[in-house]
Amino acid sequence: MQRIVVLAGGIGGARFLRGLRSAVPDAEITVVGNTGDDIHLFGLKVCPDLDTVMYTLGGGIHEEQGWGRADETFAVKEELAAYGVGPEWFGLGDRDFATHIVRTQMISAGYPLSAVTEALCARWQPGVRLLPMTDDRVETHVLIDDPDAGDAGRDEDGGDGTAGRKAVHFQEYWVRLRASVDAHAVVPVGADAAKPAPGVLEAVAAADTILFPPSNPVVSVGTILAVPGIREAIADAGVPVVGLSPIVGNAPVRGMADKVLAAVGVETTAAAVAAHYGSGLLDGWLVDTADADTVGAVEDAGIRCRAVPLLMRDEETTAEMARQALALAEEVRA
Amino acid sequence: MQRIVVLAGGIGGARFLRGLRSAVPDAEITVVGNTGDDIHLFGLKVCPDLDTVMYTLGGGIHEEQGWGRADETFAVKEELAAYGVGPEWFGLGDRDFATHIVRTQMISAGYPLSAVTEALCARWQPGVRLLPMTDDRVETHVLIDDPDAGDAGRDEDGGDGTAGRKAVHFQEYWVRLRASVDAHAVVPVGADAAKPAPGVLEAVAAADTILFPPSNPVVSVGTILAVPGIREAIADAGVPVVGLSPIVGNAPVRGMADKVLAAVGVETTAAAVAAHYGSGLLDGWLVDTADADTVGAVEDAGIRCRAVPLLMRDEETTAEMARQALALAEEVRA
Repeated sequence: MQRIVVLAGGIGGARFLRGLRSAVPDAEITVVGNTGDDIHLFGLKVCPDLDTVMYTLGGGIHEEQGWGRADETFAVKEELAAYGVGPEWFGLGDRDFATHIVRTQMISAGYPLSAVTEALCARWQPGVRLLPMTDDRVETHVLIDDPDAGDAGRDEDGGDGTAGRKAVHFQEYWVRLRASVDAHAVVPVGADAAKPAPGVLEAVAAADTILFPPSNPVVSVGTILAVPGIREAIADAGVPVVGLSPIVGNAPVRGMADKVLAAVGVETTAAAVAAHYGSGLLDGWLVDTADADTVGAVEDAGIRCRAVPLLMRDEETTAEMARQALALAEEVRA
Repeated sequence: MQRIVVLAGGIGGARFLRGLRSAVPDAEITVVGNTGDDIHLFGLKVCPDLDTVMYTLGGGIHEEQGWGRADETFAVKEELAAYGVGPEWFGLGDRDFATHIVRTQMISAGYPLSAVTEALCARWQPGVRLLPMTDDRVETHVLIDDPDAGDAGRDEDGGDGTAGRKAVHFQEYWVRLRASVDAHAVVPVGADAAKPAPGVLEAVAAADTILFPPSNPVVSVGTILAVPGIREAIADAGVPVVGLSPIVGNAPVRGMADKVLAAVGVETTAAAVAAHYGSGLLDGWLVDTADADTVGAVEDAGIRCRAVPLLMRDEETTAEMARQALALAEEVRA
């Protein structure tokens, strides 16, 4: 049986996984999920990326939106607003709330997030093994200009680049601000002290193939790779590591990846993202046919590259992307 | 301005309070609410009696049901059941969940229940000051036969009356079992070490009149009186203390008060409940016109008694009951 490990963020990762599962229904797929975008809201632990994967593969996702539950209602959110309790900018529906209530109750009872995720998946039966990247708390913060600091504050930059700036939680940057302001830095707070969740390193070591889906290379896959031990385990696994570009025609397929790529000094091109991962980590890279002219540059950087259609229009086109990624992995292996 | 203190349980107390507020709109009414039926469900702190008072006086109550929210939906509960997370026997709606989420978040942040209740009431504007009886944890337990203990267990009663029996939370007895089995004892666990919440003793000391609405004399008013200091403060306040019988024609007007009255050795009659409170505490007692023949017996026990209609059919009949209670208080005062 083919064993595949996938590092996944939210919507893009989840949709790719659905295609992958369809392409290789007999494969044993382990998903290492990003938890850097986890957030405590209303006293509840919310894990947006894990839930998006779980709901998408479990048949509970809001298809058009890409996140949250189908047939959702918002009575709890309305009531919280009536109490004047925010934030109002994060859209938690009633069905979704139940997931966070169960999770928080289990966490409070002492279960690690990995055990909680397994328990939630017992209901959703996603057809993959879903692991959080870590059971420890990691929170991705984004450094932005502080509109309250005033010009004086910005002028008095002490040299560390933080004067006149403030760090906000990734969700505040992404959801409330819709990435409308520049990100000066992206910091996975706590990552340096985090340990990979039980099963993560074992799955990587046992994998036949490792895939990076077209998830955000900074705040999704990048955060997972920031947990000490995971990047090293992948580089040392001795099996093909193949990624799919989330950038098509110099723009993110979805989301606002360009904003956070700029924060880490990476151009918004398929080739630049491949170079950002680097040939020490990545063996193969799929770019969209629109970016066929970059194949040579990627290969010159030591990463085998193919141009194939990378728009996940439906499950079948996505399954074909997965087949192309696995085919490239076989080329690498050979 | 007339200052009135009312010890209230849930549905009966809340409906009486609505009538009282209507009868004396200019009075300053302080409600000391029972918290012995509070329960932790799904990791959230639920205060059924406080919420019933708050929702009823704030216009958010489900009128027919008497508890919970109007226009309620149950998506969260359905989802929790889908996760296999119970209990399923406690009916928490989506709107109601928001209240418990806000409360739990504030409690976790270190606020005492009295401060949380005040914050919740800032939205509901109940027109009374609602205080929990205590900020400490008190949980009413009911001792019942343990169906799992077997006959041997019941035969081996060691003399303390607990062999072959088990204690269940009041809500489990009342809601799950619907008081369908005998209650051998009712124990407000933690009450002996509880302190009255800030403002309770001060309100009692400043009161012109103290009222016991037709709430459950054991598990509602009785639990409040079990908090050390409250009974004494009422007895020593030197103002009329008047109660309204929750028993009409030898049966509870609503609920299953007969079951818990039996547990404390009190007959299910209006006169027996008056005697249970006692002339040391109670100055006046209203019984229903159906129980007019017991007026003499109550008065012989040293408690001034009148027979008036005690069915809270609507706000106006309830307001009239409140006026009768206040009139009896004036008789006592004179």
